[in-house]
Amino acid sequence: MSRIAYVNGKYVTHLMAGVHIEDRGYQFADGVYEVIAVRGGQLVDLDPHFDRLERSLEALKIAQPISRGALAVVVRETVRRNLVRDGIVYMQITRGTAPRSHPFPSDVDPAVVVTARPMAPPSADVIKNGVRVVTIADIRWGRCDIKSISLLPNILAKQHAVESGAYEAWLVDEDGYVTEGSSSNAWIVNSDGALVTRDLSAAVLGGITRSAVLNACGAVGIAVLQGGFTLEHAKNGREAMITSTTSFVIPVVDIDGSKVGDGRPGPVFQRLRALYTAHLQSQ
Amino acid sequence: MSRIAYVNGKYVTHLMAGVHIEDRGYQFADGVYEVIAVRGGQLVDLDPHFDRLERSLEALKIAQPISRGALAVVVRETVRRNLVRDGIVYMQITRGTAPRSHPFPSDVDPAVVVTARPMAPPSADVIKNGVRVVTIADIRWGRCDIKSISLLPNILAKQHAVESGAYEAWLVDEDGYVTEGSSSNAWIVNSDGALVTRDLSAAVLGGITRSAVLNACGAVGIAVLQGGFTLEHAKNGREAMITSTTSFVIPVVDIDGSKVGDGRPGPVFQRLRALYTAHLQSQ
Repeated sequence: MSRIAYVNGKYVTHLMAGVHIEDRGYQFADGVYEVIAVRGGQLVDLDPHFDRLERSLEALKIAQPISRGALAVVVRETVRRNLVRDGIVYMQITRGTAPRSHPFPSDVDPAVVVTARPMAPPSADVIKNGVRVVTIADIRWGRCDIKSISLLPNILAKQHAVESGAYEAWLVDEDGYVTEGSSSNAWIVNSDGALVTRDLSAAVLGGITRSAVLNACGAVGIAVLQGGFTLEHAKNGREAMITSTTSFVIPVVDIDGSKVGDGRPGPVFQRLRALYTAHLQSQ
Repeated sequence: MSRIAYVNGKYVTHLMAGVHIEDRGYQFADGVYEVIAVRGGQLVDLDPHFDRLERSLEALKIAQPISRGALAVVVRETVRRNLVRDGIVYMQITRGTAPRSHPFPSDVDPAVVVTARPMAPPSADVIKNGVRVVTIADIRWGRCDIKSISLLPNILAKQHAVESGAYEAWLVDEDGYVTEGSSSNAWIVNSDGALVTRDLSAAVLGGITRSAVLNACGAVGIAVLQGGFTLEHAKNGREAMITSTTSFVIPVVDIDGSKVGDGRPGPVFQRLRALYTAHLQSQ
């Protein structure tokens, strides 16, 4: 449980932390966010998260409310005040509060909220036995590359996964290709043994964990095809995985009730997990 | 300016009206809303708005927090406390407050916010001379029939309109058809003289003003084709209009810099405006 939240310049008791009803985040989903993992008290990939936050703000033409250095201080202080050694920091920036009207208001200050809370890493059971995913049509908007709080389709997809007894929902585009999960990136080892994930475009969010895994693969000479994959590719593949800030790298052993490979986490997953664990320890 | 807001069971000073930072409306756009016009102290089309609100809640599986009768009392009381004779009531219902996690939380109470403020009807200049619209690709999600607060693409489209010196942005789908405006429905009188608007589907919000105009047309024998129209149809048409809760019916005289018809509000607009004015007076 988060105990102290940073809201617009003040550290306040989480229970009492509020924003105005006309904050545009509340009325229009007019804002962006980031989730950063904390491991052993260290912030994982802070700079890439800040880079992406700034890209998201730029895409929506929301002014950066405080400098990167100042935001880093707030993030660290929020982690410290919540006694988080292993968990997450959440930060959200919205365009600010103004009488409700669609166009951007002038002369408003963006609103900044930062929270932190402990969170366990993926369980030993998940690592050992893998997880199930289900698939659902990707009906999201055309700018999924912006990490906006306009997440209604994502939560509906995740709820579908939960109601189906699955860990995650993979979103499938009109061409039958998997774009990504509702809150994660999707990977497979195809029937040829190639590691495949989706290329970056407006159809997917460029995951920081995705990027860290790609970098780690590059460093040790593991080729990754960024051409995307269909559901058929996935179901006929040898392995499947998801990556995210909170899931790190976890194995997928079942897609829509079809076993992936032999239904057990495979050697490529084990290799990526080891690489990502080393990445976490290098922070 | 709204002075008093209803927030989760209490009437509070608007300036101090807040919601928790983990209200899912703020973090996930997990909520719905309605805007109802107030004319001469009367609520315009209250029941159709409540019908649509209930459909939106149902679509997102958000429990209805208070009965329709109780919500009507709150709406009327909010109008009264804000001394609104001509203006709008805004109501928003979100899934409620819970520690941030994508799936629906259990055992949370939906949050309810109601505000009201004076607002002038469309100006005499707008009625006499019409407005300009610009067009932009419709990149919204696949469930635009739900009146959700996931409005980021809508505000970006409206901002594009404002920056282009236009009143509204019309959204154009992949087939070249206009779906609707960023916060209104779109109509034309085509080159054959037929009045045309888009059919209802997941691609558009079923506007209450759209519906009232359709009903009024039906009552006096004006045929309306609900087959939609392309930009070409619109630019070659005789007239164009938009309808919305706050715009009522207003004439469009220019689309992307191309004059519609003779560039003046036309006879079909005048007829629809008269019909809708009578509808407003019948409340």
